Amino acid sequence: MTTNRYWLLDRHPEGTDFAKALSLHEAPLAPLCEDEVRIRVGWLSMDAGTRMWMTPRTDGYQPPLPLGSAMVGVVLGRVSESRDPRFPEGALVRGFGQWAAFATVSADAAGLVVVDEGVADPRQHFGVLGMNAWTAYVGIREVAAVQPGDWVAVSAAAGATGSLACQVARNLGAKVVGIAGGPDKCNYLRDELRVDLAIDYKGEDVAAALADIPGGLNAYFDNVGGPILDAVLPNMAHYGRVAICGMVATYDSDEALPGPARFDQILMRRLRVEGFFIPDFLERGAEFLPILRQWYDEGKLTIRFDETRGLDNVLLAYERMMTGRNIGKVIVDVRV
Amino acid sequence: MTTNRYWLLDRHPEGTDFAKALSLHEAPLAPLCEDEVRIRVGWLSMDAGTRMWMTPRTDGYQPPLPLGSAMVGVVLGRVSESRDPRFPEGALVRGFGQWAAFATVSADAAGLVVVDEGVADPRQHFGVLGMNAWTAYVGIREVAAVQPGDWVAVSAAAGATGSLACQVARNLGAKVVGIAGGPDKCNYLRDELRVDLAIDYKGEDVAAALADIPGGLNAYFDNVGGPILDAVLPNMAHYGRVAICGMVATYDSDEALPGPARFDQILMRRLRVEGFFIPDFLERGAEFLPILRQWYDEGKLTIRFDETRGLDNVLLAYERMMTGRNIGKVIVDVRV
Repeated sequence: MTTNRYWLLDRHPEGTDFAKALSLHEAPLAPLCEDEVRIRVGWLSMDAGTRMWMTPRTDGYQPPLPLGSAMVGVVLGRVSESRDPRFPEGALVRGFGQWAAFATVSADAAGLVVVDEGVADPRQHFGVLGMNAWTAYVGIREVAAVQPGDWVAVSAAAGATGSLACQVARNLGAKVVGIAGGPDKCNYLRDELRVDLAIDYKGEDVAAALADIPGGLNAYFDNVGGPILDAVLPNMAHYGRVAICGMVATYDSDEALPGPARFDQILMRRLRVEGFFIPDFLERGAEFLPILRQWYDEGKLTIRFDETRGLDNVLLAYERMMTGRNIGKVIVDVRV
Repeated sequence: MTTNRYWLLDRHPEGTDFAKALSLHEAPLAPLCEDEVRIRVGWLSMDAGTRMWMTPRTDGYQPPLPLGSAMVGVVLGRVSESRDPRFPEGALVRGFGQWAAFATVSADAAGLVVVDEGVADPRQHFGVLGMNAWTAYVGIREVAAVQPGDWVAVSAAAGATGSLACQVARNLGAKVVGIAGGPDKCNYLRDELRVDLAIDYKGEDVAAALADIPGGLNAYFDNVGGPILDAVLPNMAHYGRVAICGMVATYDSDEALPGPARFDQILMRRLRVEGFFIPDFLERGAEFLPILRQWYDEGKLTIRFDETRGLDNVLLAYERMMTGRNIGKVIVDVRV
């Protein structure tokens, strides 16, 4: 009988003190129910969006995860057992599943997909071919409607979604402003992502740096909300588009925070501000993937991995991501 | 030699104390310069948007009006003298001009148009055929993309633009929620505009009243911003649209005010929030006018006028409008 190891959500975390809120358990694997698929997890994806499931807030994307449940995120691994013929044993799959050595899921609820075995580094299914890349593509191309020659700013630009959004914008012919915290991240933006302007929000006045852009910003891909959004809004060009991808600052709060102080600029500059959520676009993956794949093959879309080893260390990885100490995509290698 | 009377902006008003900021003057009319048109003003339109020109803020729609200038608004009257052959003496015209007995303008800068003499009540060129109606139409139809069966809320619903927005939404087959202050306005919304729900924000909990709408609001036409926007956002349906037409609360302030506390709902509900400004759409008037005219002829688009008599009393009318004591369109009859 095989033993599983998995993380349970015991209580709602305060801030980034996840060790008090989650605990690692062991139990024998139960037999599969009808239609279920079991995945031997290779890697776990660490995503800020999952922070909200840990809170009791009911007005978020999805209902909160009940206390006592296994914590859920996006997992990548091979099917180890299956009662769903679409996902045979041995298939490499990605979808929503437990933070566990073995994730047991219903394929449709989990958004399970078989991924391309022809990609040399399977981690790229969490990278340039993963949900962060879809998010970057949809946000830049469709929500922010970026055109060649536009000036586009991206916040949390050294993070997984942000670094991909910078490259998608660049690949579409836009001029890119990456906003990130600290010189290491800004060097990464300049040297590896080749942005036109990198702004270190910890060391620079963001509004003043943006004020130099001729004609203002045509689009902004926002991962953070808060003071950076306030610095961006008065520096938008008329008829600019703001794609709201994330509001990291609000995920660990059940209380309403002050809204953007320069909300009035939406009217004054006739801006379009739109929130989007990538699971709404999952069915369109077949449309995005070939473009992302082509850019990857041409060396025009890259990602850095910030990898932690071992299921025991998942909270360290999660905290790294939530506190922005990472460059690129935070993942946990569960195989070791 | 004809004497003109006109209002000058002497200083930036504080709040609604306009008497300390503007003064009425008399001077002989100067000869027209090349291309100029002179209008004997019949009526002045009182519009909240003009409040911003009285402030020194440079991040608004338009540059501030320099102190010492004649105050400008939308005027309706007959051409009394002309050096522009497109606007011959006697033509009934509308455009941006001075708060004066005679407005002297350059036609293009003033957005001057000859209006239809076939409308029995010429005031309707400030009413169901005027800029407020264009604003209502563009905001409801294009920005908020209202569809038959949608639930649509309108704030300042008993004002000029709001009352027309309610009717445009109703005429497009939507269900309409009008939000206004006080029982008289709410009775007007119910009895004359036939909204599906009228909410008195002075006497009711707006958020609680909206929570009863099945499925939430599909669209919101916002004239006010502030606490009503905060009450609306968590009551929007997913993928709802917010057309930002005005933010009356911010016009008399040169300082940034707190943004919407429930800004996070833009992400959680995947909302689209868009600011718009009707002068951007002036060239499309030929497209809107026949529809508005047809609704008017069919009795499906009406407006109440809140009329003040005499150029001397313009500040009283302006203050009525800015403090929301009016129902319908505030105008000044300058002929008397």
